[in-house]
Amino acid sequence: MSFEPCNAAMLALGQAPSVIRETFEYGNKRATEIGRENVFDFSLGNPSVAPPESVHDSMRKLMDEIPSVALHSYTSAVGAEPVRAAIASDINTRYQAGVSAGDIYMTCGAAASLTVTLHAILCPGDVCMTFAPFFPEYRVFVEKTGATFEIVPADTVHFQINLEAFRKMVSPATKAILINTPNNPTGVIYTEENLKALCDILREKSAEYGHPIYLIADEPYRELVYDDTAVVPYLTNLYANTFVCYSYSKSLSLPGERIGYIVVSPTMEQQRMLYAAVCGAGRALGFVCAPSLMQRVVAENLGKTADLAVYRKNRDLLYHALTAYGYRCIYPDGAFYLFVQALEPDANAFCQRARDYELLLVPSDSFGCEGFVRISYCVTTEMIERSLPAFEQLAAAYR
Amino acid sequence: MSFEPCNAAMLALGQAPSVIRETFEYGNKRATEIGRENVFDFSLGNPSVAPPESVHDSMRKLMDEIPSVALHSYTSAVGAEPVRAAIASDINTRYQAGVSAGDIYMTCGAAASLTVTLHAILCPGDVCMTFAPFFPEYRVFVEKTGATFEIVPADTVHFQINLEAFRKMVSPATKAILINTPNNPTGVIYTEENLKALCDILREKSAEYGHPIYLIADEPYRELVYDDTAVVPYLTNLYANTFVCYSYSKSLSLPGERIGYIVVSPTMEQQRMLYAAVCGAGRALGFVCAPSLMQRVVAENLGKTADLAVYRKNRDLLYHALTAYGYRCIYPDGAFYLFVQALEPDANAFCQRARDYELLLVPSDSFGCEGFVRISYCVTTEMIERSLPAFEQLAAAYR
Repeated sequence: MSFEPCNAAMLALGQAPSVIRETFEYGNKRATEIGRENVFDFSLGNPSVAPPESVHDSMRKLMDEIPSVALHSYTSAVGAEPVRAAIASDINTRYQAGVSAGDIYMTCGAAASLTVTLHAILCPGDVCMTFAPFFPEYRVFVEKTGATFEIVPADTVHFQINLEAFRKMVSPATKAILINTPNNPTGVIYTEENLKALCDILREKSAEYGHPIYLIADEPYRELVYDDTAVVPYLTNLYANTFVCYSYSKSLSLPGERIGYIVVSPTMEQQRMLYAAVCGAGRALGFVCAPSLMQRVVAENLGKTADLAVYRKNRDLLYHALTAYGYRCIYPDGAFYLFVQALEPDANAFCQRARDYELLLVPSDSFGCEGFVRISYCVTTEMIERSLPAFEQLAAAYR
Repeated sequence: MSFEPCNAAMLALGQAPSVIRETFEYGNKRATEIGRENVFDFSLGNPSVAPPESVHDSMRKLMDEIPSVALHSYTSAVGAEPVRAAIASDINTRYQAGVSAGDIYMTCGAAASLTVTLHAILCPGDVCMTFAPFFPEYRVFVEKTGATFEIVPADTVHFQINLEAFRKMVSPATKAILINTPNNPTGVIYTEENLKALCDILREKSAEYGHPIYLIADEPYRELVYDDTAVVPYLTNLYANTFVCYSYSKSLSLPGERIGYIVVSPTMEQQRMLYAAVCGAGRALGFVCAPSLMQRVVAENLGKTADLAVYRKNRDLLYHALTAYGYRCIYPDGAFYLFVQALEPDANAFCQRARDYELLLVPSDSFGCEGFVRISYCVTTEMIERSLPAFEQLAAAYR
């Protein structure tokens, strides 16, 4: 018999860190060489603004008021009931979605929301599709279930969902589609019109194939929206067979604390069965429960956010400067990313050249869309200001 | 084509909650009917003593001293380097194990330590064995990897590892064995002699089969030891190809906070490769990083424990009372469980009858060993005192 000393797929993932992290590590190395202030690292999607002060206020209050043995004990595997009830109420106030506590499953953050949902529904042989450009870990999460990951090509003009391409690709094997709005890496918000047209196709194809196609909405950037005119529709209101995967990493600037949730739409077909499958997947993957203190903290901070005005300022500053220098970029309504066309066809070569100006950008290939770079502007405004001459010089070098 | 609306295995897990949790839910229902004080719930392994006060001191100090945006940010996927260095140093001080920060991978608790390790090494077709009686979720975690779960029958006299039975069952397909000492559900600590003999067999069979057989040590109860004479050997010192899976849930009474770690033995064959596979598995399962605040909290509380004297008092009280009433029970050196022989052959029937006396016990069938019940004594001493007449009446009813 053949013997592999470990699981080869897991080894490959462990040995091939993402290009994002690789760029970040390069930045740390470069900072030791020339000083942190001379490196312009736009690689990581790590919130740069503090959590609202109310988060620490809540932590202190909970420590003072709740006996510590209760505060840190296991909660129900699905999450503490009062926490889920409070979140459901907040969702309903904002989106009139008719969600109840029993539709919510608390998770250890956005990645866990996705892996638990994907393992709950997918089987080997199923297809899960996403739309380019997309967060590269989607491929890792989907393929771990044994299902096939398929990428619908990007609409590189508006970066909305490419409906014509999707219509050609969808098949009876399509069990789920995964969308992300506001989008990483483009910062684009899918319009209500675009989403409604997608949902129409999903309903049409579900009827044609005789089984539901699930919509998985990855929404960590829901609150990171900078223009009053931009609206992020709540997907359960547009499509019954929807899972909403949420995280507080960005809205409350708590990415390290791993806290989020899944909403299994109350209108989903066989909803209790799908919710039970979510519970089973969370159990099998080893999640046990979401961190207990943070469950209570987020329930006390509903509707609050970190100071997102900093991101808006950064976006405006960077977007206007780069377009003035001649870069081409889709206008981002949300998240904290700019998706900029590389100044040569090979985005990897462009990113290498940008390093000559100490600019650390992420090439777009791993997002499923070649020829662009992602610029994360969740950095200090002051670093952006200092980086602008470098961007200008880089553009000039290509003229 | 056939279509399953969700993953059938995950659905089955979600719809069939464990007998432990079912018993706990029955207890809650019964408490509303006859009053909490009249229900004697010994079902859950949920720490009943508070975390040491230094845990909240550390939390307050960290909130005061570290900027909140840094305190709650993502750490490295393997865990913050200073945290891992501190843990390694503590392990080396106590066990002279030669562990360094680079051998440690921080996790979201014991279950995550196990699932990440299992997914890192196991492939479909592999066999992972454990020794009865065992924590029932082991089956769930192993089977989710696609590997086969095999149970070595119990030594029902001493509840040590049944070496003869293991020697008969081990085969070239055996890739890993999973042990738990101090043991859930028996409270027994495997002796150094017993463990050394196991490791000898593992070395012999690894050589014979031409591949390593990994030893996975699940050690959440390591510090819960009540007799000075009892020693829990550190497994990496006995066997090179060892993964130690640890959690602070019991030692610091923080089960809801989901914080633990994996040690990949520094002496393991192809150690860096196995560590990389652990990183890959953590990534694929969606763990991202262990909760960031709690990483720092445990690093500041190394060597500290909750007040374990309460458990010792509970053990002594319950063990001596039950044996005086005629129950037969292996003497437990650690953890917080008694494993008591049922007073009729069918442990389920015995547990049902115990409910007539409001005693909530867990039948042993799901632990892979029929005819016993698990009694969790991580409860108030006062509840144990009040429950003793019920235990006495239950025994009398069988005479």
